[in-house]
Amino acid sequence: MQPHLSHQPCWSLPSPSVREAASMYGTAVAIFLVILVAALQGSEPPESPFPYHIPLDPEGTLELSWNVSYDQEIIHFQLQVQGPRAGVLFGMSDRGEMENADLVMLWTDGDRTYFADAWSDQKGQIHLDTHQDYQLLQAQRVSNSLSLLFKRPFVTCDPKDYVIEDDTVHLVYGILEEPFQSLEAINTSGLHTGLQQVQLLKPEVSTPAMPADVQTMDIRAPDVLIPSTETTYWCYITELPLHFPRHHIIMYEAIVTEGNEALVHHMEVFQCTNESEAFPMFNGPCDSKMKPDRLNYCRHVLAAWALGAKAFYYPEEAGVPLGSSGSSRFLRLEVHYHNPRNIQGRRDSSGIRLHYTASLRPNEAGIMELGLVYTPLMAIPPQETTFVLTGYCTDRCTQMALPKSGIRIFASQLHTHLTGRKVITVLARDGQQREVVNRDNHYSPHFQEIRMLKNAVTVHQGDVLITSCTYNTENRTMATVGGFGILEEMCVNYVHYYPKTELELCKSAVDDGFLQKYFHIVNRFGNEEVCTCPQASVPQQFASVPWNSFNRDMLKALYNYAPISVHCNKTSAVRFPGNWNLQPLPNITSAVEEPDPRCPIRQTRGPAGPFVVITHGGRH
Amino acid sequence: MQPHLSHQPCWSLPSPSVREAASMYGTAVAIFLVILVAALQGSEPPESPFPYHIPLDPEGTLELSWNVSYDQEIIHFQLQVQGPRAGVLFGMSDRGEMENADLVMLWTDGDRTYFADAWSDQKGQIHLDTHQDYQLLQAQRVSNSLSLLFKRPFVTCDPKDYVIEDDTVHLVYGILEEPFQSLEAINTSGLHTGLQQVQLLKPEVSTPAMPADVQTMDIRAPDVLIPSTETTYWCYITELPLHFPRHHIIMYEAIVTEGNEALVHHMEVFQCTNESEAFPMFNGPCDSKMKPDRLNYCRHVLAAWALGAKAFYYPEEAGVPLGSSGSSRFLRLEVHYHNPRNIQGRRDSSGIRLHYTASLRPNEAGIMELGLVYTPLMAIPPQETTFVLTGYCTDRCTQMALPKSGIRIFASQLHTHLTGRKVITVLARDGQQREVVNRDNHYSPHFQEIRMLKNAVTVHQGDVLITSCTYNTENRTMATVGGFGILEEMCVNYVHYYPKTELELCKSAVDDGFLQKYFHIVNRFGNEEVCTCPQASVPQQFASVPWNSFNRDMLKALYNYAPISVHCNKTSAVRFPGNWNLQPLPNITSAVEEPDPRCPIRQTRGPAGPFVVITHGGRH
Repeated sequence: MQPHLSHQPCWSLPSPSVREAASMYGTAVAIFLVILVAALQGSEPPESPFPYHIPLDPEGTLELSWNVSYDQEIIHFQLQVQGPRAGVLFGMSDRGEMENADLVMLWTDGDRTYFADAWSDQKGQIHLDTHQDYQLLQAQRVSNSLSLLFKRPFVTCDPKDYVIEDDTVHLVYGILEEPFQSLEAINTSGLHTGLQQVQLLKPEVSTPAMPADVQTMDIRAPDVLIPSTETTYWCYITELPLHFPRHHIIMYEAIVTEGNEALVHHMEVFQCTNESEAFPMFNGPCDSKMKPDRLNYCRHVLAAWALGAKAFYYPEEAGVPLGSSGSSRFLRLEVHYHNPRNIQGRRDSSGIRLHYTASLRPNEAGIMELGLVYTPLMAIPPQETTFVLTGYCTDRCTQMALPKSGIRIFASQLHTHLTGRKVITVLARDGQQREVVNRDNHYSPHFQEIRMLKNAVTVHQGDVLITSCTYNTENRTMATVGGFGILEEMCVNYVHYYPKTELELCKSAVDDGFLQKYFHIVNRFGNEEVCTCPQASVPQQFASVPWNSFNRDMLKALYNYAPISVHCNKTSAVRFPGNWNLQPLPNITSAVEEPDPRCPIRQTRGPAGPFVVITHGGRH
Repeated sequence: MQPHLSHQPCWSLPSPSVREAASMYGTAVAIFLVILVAALQGSEPPESPFPYHIPLDPEGTLELSWNVSYDQEIIHFQLQVQGPRAGVLFGMSDRGEMENADLVMLWTDGDRTYFADAWSDQKGQIHLDTHQDYQLLQAQRVSNSLSLLFKRPFVTCDPKDYVIEDDTVHLVYGILEEPFQSLEAINTSGLHTGLQQVQLLKPEVSTPAMPADVQTMDIRAPDVLIPSTETTYWCYITELPLHFPRHHIIMYEAIVTEGNEALVHHMEVFQCTNESEAFPMFNGPCDSKMKPDRLNYCRHVLAAWALGAKAFYYPEEAGVPLGSSGSSRFLRLEVHYHNPRNIQGRRDSSGIRLHYTASLRPNEAGIMELGLVYTPLMAIPPQETTFVLTGYCTDRCTQMALPKSGIRIFASQLHTHLTGRKVITVLARDGQQREVVNRDNHYSPHFQEIRMLKNAVTVHQGDVLITSCTYNTENRTMATVGGFGILEEMCVNYVHYYPKTELELCKSAVDDGFLQKYFHIVNRFGNEEVCTCPQASVPQQFASVPWNSFNRDMLKALYNYAPISVHCNKTSAVRFPGNWNLQPLPNITSAVEEPDPRCPIRQTRGPAGPFVVITHGGRH
């Protein structure tokens, strides 16, 4: 793609402030290329080749579109900015902070407008990158909006640049309302800024053809008045028609009410348990005191969508059963509204459209839970920045419960509660890690979607599936124990696979006898009191541990050593036959081999300074 | 510096094999620059601007010279290769391995000779670097030898390149005896290779002027027949004249017998203890059964030199006392001969020349021992790759023992036994790490020298000095305990400082009562037998620990938590007054801030492929 040159292209020397910024890096930047003069009016941009779009801010001032070239390992971004602005910043950071961020900057000194690859330090101060890896291809002003087209390799090997991987990316943005004399004069703390989570590197999965008899069913909340609070989880119960026969869901997609694109953050459809005949109707906030407790039994995920996700197509050889006597007719829709500006009076009927067919596919797709059992035996001390808990699906369980031909995992949804920061599931065979099933090094509990895997993973009998979650409890004063509560923690990977088996749950937790040995040592070693009396519950015991470094390190040592209790279950209550207690931890001797990052060849890059993009002319 | 162009410069296209190698990296390398045609005879190279020289191999086939520009953060290397060779490789790796090394390659396909920045993978297979960071400046053939001049930045930010720091660097070399059709066809395992340890980044310390009355004294072994075994430590006892009055040593330097430069690896001069009137004379291998035990009391380092080191100048305000009634007249010289090719019949009189003066300087320089007490309480489990032990010089000790104005540390010698891999001493004040006193991330017990610090460090009353050593016990089957034996371990930093104080030793070890609690837990938790009977020694207790992950992790947790016994001593046997047992570990809340690596700007680099250096002409 060539830079789009408008009328009046010209060459220009940089202003003193820019020369200064560039010389800080020891470069004598000789010539700056003015690639566009402002106010190109009346010409529409060419039709968009960008399959993915998201609003960056709740007002819809900034909209991002992008496409991905896996061959070239490059992303093209198109950023559209509404209204007259002095400039904009866009970029990525570990968890959405404005500090230590990898940025592209468009700013003006009042005279000229510049584009540059930059970064922010730990105080939010902005600096020019040594390597200009974001490459501007086009800058276009249309009436009252500005459109920037630029590209960047996934990996730049510049230590100041974010490494774009296929997990969650925390995009950051900021709006500059006034000129700055130089890039170094800008600090992100003084700007109107925000973040948006997205998966940038969507997998390239071929789209199976839809059969002729495909039908659709919209699961949507009817005309909700979006509350003017930052976070609302809205719950709505609906039901399938009576005697609805067996179908296969083969695709689903989001339907978002026009104008609310920046407010609807993510949505999920759950099927209720089959153990109850009927569920009460409900339409209101999920945390409402009026919400019937029974709705907690509607937890079986049927569909999940999050901002930026496109339609979800099941592999052509599998479908998800919908209807029939064996499953509940009741469905729960949950919509997460994210309204940080407390916008009032907005009405919404967003939801999910299921595409289903009566022509059943050869395989039924199932969902299996991997990770940790929901139990307080697994706990995280307070004030930890990166504490890891691991759950195992052991070789003995896959040997017993999987078919000889194995299963294929094609999608995955990672799940923790509020302190989760990373999740990974790895497949191991014969004591060696073989491949990553799914991984998110920038996991956010506020951004949960079902992700198609780039490569489906086949799990054979005797394989081990290891799911690890990393937690940050810096802001907690007490230990965080495992459990269902929002202030308790989970570590789960819901894997979507076929053919469906009886195995619904393959998880583990530390053996409780060994945990009691831990509490005993804590007691003896520290000469301090940890309640080990018979009536103390495990959460009470954890609450009385003095969290010195020895007790923290010893808890990690325990979890890395002690035998486990394995839940190799048909349903949450029914285990496969056998004794699953005091199982040894899988002995894994080698880690997954990670390919080296491929640094791009830098032969074609531009000069190591900011580009002048727009010259306003006059005013010197 | 400009490339030296000889007669017949010409442009040439690469041979097919090279084109292949380059295209593997996706580069279309258009043009290769032939910068030298072979066999430039009769012209001497210009006078060498290189202050540092070392032989790379024991035969003296390869000799390296270098200089350092701290301003530009660049090293210039000159590599001289004797005899007709098909090529040579030179580079750096973590600990001298030929795998995962950062290399420059000079090789021929029989027709042309090429130069390239390359790297070896974990199997020793050689690949072209994406970034060509070694830049060839001159290649010159003089009669039967080849001289290469090239430069490289300290830090390249290419993940395949070694980061050159001011610690030990393990240089690697290899000689190519035959042509290879391409770079990728070369594997280091098939070559004649070796390693050499050196400090590349010597500090830029100004050289104080020598006074008029300076005298010299040579401490050298008389006409030693170098044994034809790989490793010999040669011991030689000599003495100062009777009634030798007080002087100050102000400089020392190595005197290496000509022709033995590649065999003399390092040398040290020790002063014997003053507690004995006389020591027996001795001249022989240090491990000889004939060596008198008394010589073990000659341990006070006066001078130390290792390969590549230049003369050692004391700061002009300090000198090391030599002579007088308060110190022993007896000196021990230790010479380490490294003779891996078992060369026979070589005679040697190498040693150290002390430069001393009767005009005493304002301050006496002293040596203080930091790190761990020599005690089995501090132990390393077997089969550990990176186990860290830490010794503390506490605020209470520096408060009591240092003068109000503090002391200045100007040099440091790090010391461990065979399993030591890294050593660092950090200064902390008010609970925060402030600066690194000395650090070697590529420490080798076989390369011990006294190093001048780039910046002298002032230690005030109340400061804490933390010395950590990292050990590798992969090849051990039993725990390695602290102690004097060569198979036991030490963690010591001998710091050279002024003004001299009474504090000779400021070290620590874990409290023995807490270690006994550890053995007790090991016993209870594992239901296994660890001997805790009264007659068991600590080494016996460590020998009976079953080294599962829990007991390993818990030992680390103990050393990071348990109180310590501090040795704040005037001499090894005399403590400063007070109770130094059960002291709390210093509470350090922040680490030393490390500056970001400065990646070089790559604007001026050459094409991303190998250079053709020499065209032999004809033969197609």
